[in-house]
Amino acid sequence: SYVLVLNCGSSSLKFAVIDASTGEQPLSGMAERLGSDDAEIVFKQNGAKQTQALTPHTHKSALQALVTYLLGYPALVQSLTAIGHRVVHGGEHFREAILIDSLSQQRIADCSNLAPLHNPANLLGIEAAQEAFPQLPQVAVFDTAFHQQMPDYAYLYPLPYEYYRDLGVRRYGFHGTSCRYVTAEAARLLNKPAAELKLIIAHLGNGASLTAVKHGHSVDTTMGLTPLEGVVHGTRCGSIDPGIIAYLAHRLNKSTDEIDAILWKKSGLLGLSGLSNDCRTIEEAAANGHEQAQLTLEIYAYRLAKAVGELMIPLGRLDALVFTGGIGENSSLIRARTLDWLGFLGLQLDSEANEQCIRGKAGKISQNGHAAAWVIPTNEELMIARDSVALAAAAQGEQA
Amino acid sequence: SYVLVLNCGSSSLKFAVIDASTGEQPLSGMAERLGSDDAEIVFKQNGAKQTQALTPHTHKSALQALVTYLLGYPALVQSLTAIGHRVVHGGEHFREAILIDSLSQQRIADCSNLAPLHNPANLLGIEAAQEAFPQLPQVAVFDTAFHQQMPDYAYLYPLPYEYYRDLGVRRYGFHGTSCRYVTAEAARLLNKPAAELKLIIAHLGNGASLTAVKHGHSVDTTMGLTPLEGVVHGTRCGSIDPGIIAYLAHRLNKSTDEIDAILWKKSGLLGLSGLSNDCRTIEEAAANGHEQAQLTLEIYAYRLAKAVGELMIPLGRLDALVFTGGIGENSSLIRARTLDWLGFLGLQLDSEANEQCIRGKAGKISQNGHAAAWVIPTNEELMIARDSVALAAAAQGEQA
Ligand SMILES: Nc1ncnc2c1ncn2[C@@H]1O[C@H](COP(=O)(O)OP(=O)(O)O)[C@@H](O)[C@H]1O
Ligand SMILES: Nc1ncnc2c1ncn2[C@@H]1O[C@H](COP(=O)(O)OP(=O)(O)O)[C@@H](O)[C@H]1O
Repeated sequence: SYVLVLNCGSSSLKFAVIDASTGEQPLSGMAERLGSDDAEIVFKQNGAKQTQALTPHTHKSALQALVTYLLGYPALVQSLTAIGHRVVHGGEHFREAILIDSLSQQRIADCSNLAPLHNPANLLGIEAAQEAFPQLPQVAVFDTAFHQQMPDYAYLYPLPYEYYRDLGVRRYGFHGTSCRYVTAEAARLLNKPAAELKLIIAHLGNGASLTAVKHGHSVDTTMGLTPLEGVVHGTRCGSIDPGIIAYLAHRLNKSTDEIDAILWKKSGLLGLSGLSNDCRTIEEAAANGHEQAQLTLEIYAYRLAKAVGELMIPLGRLDALVFTGGIGENSSLIRARTLDWLGFLGLQLDSEANEQCIRGKAGKISQNGHAAAWVIPTNEELMIARDSVALAAAAQGEQA
Repeated sequence: SYVLVLNCGSSSLKFAVIDASTGEQPLSGMAERLGSDDAEIVFKQNGAKQTQALTPHTHKSALQALVTYLLGYPALVQSLTAIGHRVVHGGEHFREAILIDSLSQQRIADCSNLAPLHNPANLLGIEAAQEAFPQLPQVAVFDTAFHQQMPDYAYLYPLPYEYYRDLGVRRYGFHGTSCRYVTAEAARLLNKPAAELKLIIAHLGNGASLTAVKHGHSVDTTMGLTPLEGVVHGTRCGSIDPGIIAYLAHRLNKSTDEIDAILWKKSGLLGLSGLSNDCRTIEEAAANGHEQAQLTLEIYAYRLAKAVGELMIPLGRLDALVFTGGIGENSSLIRARTLDWLGFLGLQLDSEANEQCIRGKAGKISQNGHAAAWVIPTNEELMIARDSVALAAAAQGEQA
């Protein structure tokens, strides 16, 4: 059965019609630069690509364009059994995917404080989809849900306790849907039930996070209240001395918001390299002798390895370190550099296997030892599609 | 030979006359609450204690009171061979202790941007001591110096590179003098040259830091540009999601400086427990069933253990984890809780030894295994005295 998966970002809308059993995508595409003059939407179907300019440049008009396009393919619309929405922040309320009703919609809105750029966009997608397809069950799948069983000593920050109680300041973690998918895949590939595995999942994309997964549950993760914390991201700084913010505000005579924008948009791979937030560009420059690019990759791998060291604490033993996401699935260089630091955990690179696991190929990239390293491509959309089908079926069962 | 050691804090002045070979302190004391109406200075000599109120309430008047007191003991003054100053921030310039001259004094002033509360106070102490004892060599010993050999990939933050180049934003690390002392003691107690040891030193006082010491050099440490980063401190938060600052600024409608003050003064053990920044008070409350106090200790130990995991990356192997500082030297509870997480490194608590190593007693607190855990009391003042004697002797040698 087919699911329409919607991922409304702050200035983008990704969508796909997905076969929840095979992962096949008869239609997919993306609206980009929403809010700016050159907003456009791209549809990909049967290998063909079609682009439309968007006026007005809003999420709403992007969704309308998508609906109009879909209505031109009645058979495709007929085949849909649910619409699955990626929702960034589920706060402490949402511990798993849910069927959307008016109460849960309100609760997603209540979490907007925690993700002011993302949850409102997610809600726009939900409203537009309800209007266009009132007969279809709508499902929300949260980036944070997989981490909600984390123990309190892992999610609390050493801040005045009332900020947790009154303002919800705690570690939530993100990339949860990816971690859930990869955990299931790891269990399949390692041929052991998830309930017996201790994994560290390094999801390395434009945003990057590491999660310790113990017996199928997240027990700690490097992202926090926001997706800024943790390892080096494409344009975000990850963890830094929090004292740096006031220092920079004074030295540069800038406001909190201006410094915050630098930490989110001008830092990470981009800030260190001075070149790009794209790992490929930096690897090419490094190969051509660009010293700052070389140093950037060193810092990236070193901080990644340190995060693995941290996450060994809640795990105590490691079955597998799993690389996923754009960088994790493709950069044999970053993987090799990271494993160089991790010999003390019994990890030793298998260079040949490492070079082969790129562009979607899964495999083990370490030699036999106490622990293994793997590449396992993620598929958040497929996970959302599966959740949607399962919840839609459960809802129908209840109705019958 | 005797050294007058001065430690000028932002609102305090600690001082001691120390025998650099035995560590004996014929005179010691402290001026507190400088800048406030109830500023006072306490002298301890031969077991007797004498307190004086200070007017004006300045560092300068505290130093004058000390000089006046000293001049009442001409034999003691005669025995001094040097004055040693603790200086918090040596920036990238100072890689070891130095004899103070006008050039280096200017350079210490140049580092004031990096430690606006501390370096100016340190300079006041230096100026007053020069005026009172112009004939004595003055030595500066820096908290940051021991960390200056750290590699670039460990000290650079994933921020725009020009903030390092133009504003000095990097990891400096602190507690360096303590680490240097403890490293030498560890070599003595483990009966192995420092050049062959891999240590993690957990200096746990009101401020807390962990340092990876490889072959006698700091290779990474948890404090950063400022002493705010890293593990849980008495009133400071340590590492948090940097995104929390803008979040709190918005939710509480506060300025960067107001939030910064909360991170430095209302967080850490104090903020989490809601009780005190004093570990003893929290341990007592926890023993009496206070749940928030229990959780505070759990978080403290968990974050400490995670920092050990991180610092395993640059070390690759661990000879000894060393506890020092007020909490490290006295809290068998925190040590036990921390080691509970570290079994995978081959560390196993020796409960009996752990209970015995308190109030200045050094010893091994782990059972035989790959790695050992030790308690080694620190003595920063003695280290400063030794540095001062060594530099004064070298200077005299040059003159002769
Ligand atoms: N062959 C490759 N080598 C190195 N990095 C790659 C390669 N292919 C993609 N990447 C990197 O993957 C990152 C994007 O990851 P992705 O998971 O697609 O991001 P997002 O978080 O936006 O979903 C970019 O930094 C890109 O440079
Ligand atoms: N017996 C004890 N048990 C637990 N903590 C202790 C004990 N004695 C001292 N401490 C703690 O040591 C800390 C102060 O450490 P210290 O190294 O003296 O601080 P500073 O960083 O100011 O030099 C306080 O939190 C105090 O509670």
